[in-house]
Amino acid sequence: MAQWVRFDDLGMEGFGLLQGKDIIVYQGSMFEQPIATDMRIPLASVRLLAPCEPSKIIALWNNFHQLAAKLDVAKPDEPLYLLKALSSVASPEAVVRRPPSYTERVGYEGELGIVIGKRCSNASEAEAAAAIFGYTCVNDLTASDIIARDKTFAQWARAKSFDGFCPFGPVIATDIDPAECNVKTELNGALRQDYPLSDMIFPPAILVSALSKDMTLEPGDLICCGTSLGVGSIKDPTNTVSVTIEGIGTLSTTFVQ
Amino acid sequence: MAQWVRFDDLGMEGFGLLQGKDIIVYQGSMFEQPIATDMRIPLASVRLLAPCEPSKIIALWNNFHQLAAKLDVAKPDEPLYLLKALSSVASPEAVVRRPPSYTERVGYEGELGIVIGKRCSNASEAEAAAAIFGYTCVNDLTASDIIARDKTFAQWARAKSFDGFCPFGPVIATDIDPAECNVKTELNGALRQDYPLSDMIFPPAILVSALSKDMTLEPGDLICCGTSLGVGSIKDPTNTVSVTIEGIGTLSTTFVQ
Repeated sequence: MAQWVRFDDLGMEGFGLLQGKDIIVYQGSMFEQPIATDMRIPLASVRLLAPCEPSKIIALWNNFHQLAAKLDVAKPDEPLYLLKALSSVASPEAVVRRPPSYTERVGYEGELGIVIGKRCSNASEAEAAAAIFGYTCVNDLTASDIIARDKTFAQWARAKSFDGFCPFGPVIATDIDPAECNVKTELNGALRQDYPLSDMIFPPAILVSALSKDMTLEPGDLICCGTSLGVGSIKDPTNTVSVTIEGIGTLSTTFVQ
Repeated sequence: MAQWVRFDDLGMEGFGLLQGKDIIVYQGSMFEQPIATDMRIPLASVRLLAPCEPSKIIALWNNFHQLAAKLDVAKPDEPLYLLKALSSVASPEAVVRRPPSYTERVGYEGELGIVIGKRCSNASEAEAAAAIFGYTCVNDLTASDIIARDKTFAQWARAKSFDGFCPFGPVIATDIDPAECNVKTELNGALRQDYPLSDMIFPPAILVSALSKDMTLEPGDLICCGTSLGVGSIKDPTNTVSVTIEGIGTLSTTFVQ
């Protein structure tokens, strides 16, 4: 079970593999023949960063059968998605603050994130599967009341791109089979989502293949696979939202109103 | 009249100021105290690159009174926008090819592009005006028939994010007043757009201020200000689309079916 992290150690950025309570520090590129060093750093002594630096963040809508049934929307013919701004990236264990310009509902959405490992364009499903580096947890935070505020134009990108609205991590796990995992989301300790990734309408290889026909995917690009039942609003003054996927761990975000 | 360019000179990337038929090469950051060198390179000897490297590309919808009136849509209460993928960036004078996965209409949209020069968040209009580095020409290429293909989700990001669908340049001009300029778009030599930027619903400083309340804008970020009357489809096997704004010059893109 390989789990990659990025970290900030007193201002020095690095990356490496988790091993027990330590990080084995690597050099080079995480995605292309990274080189192990003999340096080990206690995990507890560093601040974790988002585990990669995407050049794009693609976020799926309507990608789970159970949520589609609840919302009474048809299964889409092809992946439906928006882009989140890179400035929305937040570290694992980030404190995210309500944007001062927005006073209405903010929703959490626990999701699987796919991290691309190889440049990928017009890929077959087999090529797409080989271009997937690993998986992470995403909390696709959403200023829910912005989306439909204007009747002529759905404001998806804006609603999901406020600073800090894309925490992901804590690791990229390279050896899990998402179809065997559930996404569990807790809001202030109460379980709110617990849905199987096997329910995905466009599962990872099919999804990456389709997206690669729209645009070239680059190493580190993040695909947020969409959410399912149990999304809701964050209402307390200070909140802990945790997204857990077996094999990846728990992404814990503090949201302050 | 300062006109900044980026270039590739036999594999070496650089940037500088246009002066007549030469580029005065600069070092450091274009946006923070760039340093002039004594090197001059003939413009004709290099390949121009997109004049900056955005960390996000924001593209406005419904930002001109004349087009809103023609489409019979209300003037929006706030800027309406999507994000284009960074992988859609193309160089000035690029050859853009129809995506193999898409057989329907591709539209040109001549637009003003705002380039941010300073990190900018929750900016007042005056702060926003000071954060604008300069202006460029954009051709916001669009796979028009994708947008409304699904009845439940408008696919704006996808329609506008194919590889090569965001040519911009050829320069960033720092000393123009867009309100005094027109955008002129020619398709294969025929004038198709000639609209005044003074007709903009959210002009640059108001627009940048509003966007900075949604997300932190970074140096090099590109805001495509939306288009007006005269958009249309690109139909010939090989096409030249040129977008001209006085003081910036002409962005000329070859589109091949």
